[in-house]
Amino acid sequence: METHYENLISKSCKNIPPSFIREILAVAEQPGMISFAGGLPNPTYFPVEQMKIAFAEMMNSGGKEILQYAGSQGYLPLREWICARYNTRYGMNIRPENILITNGSQQALDMLGKLFINPGDPLLMEKPSYLGAIQAFSAYSPQFRQVQLNRDGIDLNQLEDEILRNGARILYSIPNFQNPSGISYSAEIRRDLAVLLDWYEMMLIEDDPYNEIRFEGDFLPPVYTHNPERTIWCGSFSKMISPGIRAGWICAPTGLIPHLLRIKQASDLHTNNVVQQLIFRFLTDHDPDEHLRKVRGVYKAQKDFMIAAIKRHFPEEISYTNPEGGMFIWATLPGHVNTNTIVDEAIEKKVVFVPGRSFYTSNTGHNNMRLNYSNAPEEMIEEGIKRLGAILKKHCALAPTSVSI
Amino acid sequence: METHYENLISKSCKNIPPSFIREILAVAEQPGMISFAGGLPNPTYFPVEQMKIAFAEMMNSGGKEILQYAGSQGYLPLREWICARYNTRYGMNIRPENILITNGSQQALDMLGKLFINPGDPLLMEKPSYLGAIQAFSAYSPQFRQVQLNRDGIDLNQLEDEILRNGARILYSIPNFQNPSGISYSAEIRRDLAVLLDWYEMMLIEDDPYNEIRFEGDFLPPVYTHNPERTIWCGSFSKMISPGIRAGWICAPTGLIPHLLRIKQASDLHTNNVVQQLIFRFLTDHDPDEHLRKVRGVYKAQKDFMIAAIKRHFPEEISYTNPEGGMFIWATLPGHVNTNTIVDEAIEKKVVFVPGRSFYTSNTGHNNMRLNYSNAPEEMIEEGIKRLGAILKKHCALAPTSVSI
Repeated sequence: METHYENLISKSCKNIPPSFIREILAVAEQPGMISFAGGLPNPTYFPVEQMKIAFAEMMNSGGKEILQYAGSQGYLPLREWICARYNTRYGMNIRPENILITNGSQQALDMLGKLFINPGDPLLMEKPSYLGAIQAFSAYSPQFRQVQLNRDGIDLNQLEDEILRNGARILYSIPNFQNPSGISYSAEIRRDLAVLLDWYEMMLIEDDPYNEIRFEGDFLPPVYTHNPERTIWCGSFSKMISPGIRAGWICAPTGLIPHLLRIKQASDLHTNNVVQQLIFRFLTDHDPDEHLRKVRGVYKAQKDFMIAAIKRHFPEEISYTNPEGGMFIWATLPGHVNTNTIVDEAIEKKVVFVPGRSFYTSNTGHNNMRLNYSNAPEEMIEEGIKRLGAILKKHCALAPTSVSI
Repeated sequence: METHYENLISKSCKNIPPSFIREILAVAEQPGMISFAGGLPNPTYFPVEQMKIAFAEMMNSGGKEILQYAGSQGYLPLREWICARYNTRYGMNIRPENILITNGSQQALDMLGKLFINPGDPLLMEKPSYLGAIQAFSAYSPQFRQVQLNRDGIDLNQLEDEILRNGARILYSIPNFQNPSGISYSAEIRRDLAVLLDWYEMMLIEDDPYNEIRFEGDFLPPVYTHNPERTIWCGSFSKMISPGIRAGWICAPTGLIPHLLRIKQASDLHTNNVVQQLIFRFLTDHDPDEHLRKVRGVYKAQKDFMIAAIKRHFPEEISYTNPEGGMFIWATLPGHVNTNTIVDEAIEKKVVFVPGRSFYTSNTGHNNMRLNYSNAPEEMIEEGIKRLGAILKKHCALAPTSVSI
């Protein structure tokens, strides 16, 4: 007897879209493949030796305690480190009681979906937005409403229209080097958004995983600094240290912490204790800023190199963003060009990117592509962009009507 | 303006009950407190030195890859290790494709809640059942239906009655050394339950975190072995190695794996890669069975010691289970005695346990208590049980009417 599982699967589970990036992981790892698809940090700068020393030292000083169950909120010294770093940088007033350590930002999004979303609730996000957030929130079956993202941040007029139309109370946004667009909010948009939150009694989920990898311009304060009672600020060690360790944090108003603690208990009791203590020891025994200076320098060089390669090889009618940090360039092709089909051709030519479609909750984005520059050396960037350029030139040259099947 | 968050919190989040154990963590850690409350493994046997060696070796051989993002299903060699171990022990036929590595069993339960539960769906579990499971599933708002647990396992007649009455399709159970009761299913109940699953086209979530710490009797095959198409078998490294590392696994039929992968991606992308590789190296470079023999010997000695202490100090009218493995003894007091109030008195006398109430989804279990024996040395067990005995004698001696307020 064959077992049919479809009628046992929950409606919410069925809502979770697959991740293009995870689906093509095997493709991206093929020998000779040049991948601009993943959002992978450059492993050259992972602190392997420092981690080895930190692990041995922490196991010597308290190994048994480290291997035992731990508190759900996270390792206190690590929470104190986070407060000290960002209170100094931004003049914030975060206390360790406001911080909860998560398994990377992705778990923060899942937990916040659980915290806020009833099935059918409207949920606002940028258009386009991070596909991992679309996945995480989909599990709670919201009604997604995407709001136009301009060059200086979310379109506040359209945001207000959507709020008034849908009564939405939750906005998810990535104000620094947004994924996928690379766009950053201006200081003015940040301040104005903070005011809107009060006006409409809303909460902002401010996802800030790329905060530490700004390689141009000044650090702009998170929206959280302007309205800490209406913002949940999510940070990550993935880009600061390493993503394989799966560690990030939620910084939330005091009134939400008991709810988040219950959610964390229900989700997985607590974040891996070994890794929390490992991170703390690495951050205190070494200078993370020296490490970050290196990473930023390399990312800036690779971004500049990719932009130059795009100028050399892409057809003129393609526009693209020029981010001040983060890991992604977002390219916009003529409306008749479809990156869903182009990606298959690209894979045949041993180069892969993420088609724009993945970053929209409605059936759009077919003429966009996300290009990651952090995980490929310059000669690979040059060769990959050249190959892509050849394919794009062919498609852009086709008359719109000839492909509108 | 004070911010009111209550009307922003989702209904499902509000359903998640707090964990008594997590709430009293601070109490349990007070100096001089004897705790029978947590389900904490004995840290004496955590393999601290072996972990140090394993970490250094793995970072030397592939540190950069270990610190990068990894696949959502988990580290393949670790999944192969799980298959080899249990295929040999139970004559199973698990393949690595059926295994997904999770952040401990708790995350497995959260993921399975997401996979199966629509709000209002009936969900069957034992009466009493694991409070962490009640927490995890509550986030998906099922209608809980608890089924009597007898000395040899779940009451199959009552189970069928509940299925017929509610049309439930999902049963959560812990057939080995159940938490909180310490009860194990007989071989017969396991086989009969496997047949019922087909008959009623149901799925069993078989939670088996204590599998490796059987200290008496023979290993009985999981229900999974009798019906792998209708069972999801959840295992854990928490009791085998260490709980602070947060690692476990789901073993599921092939047809459910793509759904579970999407859920894992949405939840936190993948389980910490450092820890997965650390576990694998520890398990292959050292003999886990030598380690487990030690742990089992100690747990059996502590269980025997606690049973003897209970015989010496508890009033005669209290009955209790005598588990063949796991970490818990379940005591049943006369019906008029209320462990919710007794626990406060006990804490004053510097001894703490978990009142039965936490393990029920309805307002019952007031005359039960869960006692953990794995994390206290013999002199603490003797002293703690003696203190508890004195309190219990006083309460048992009171006439029922005098406390039925």
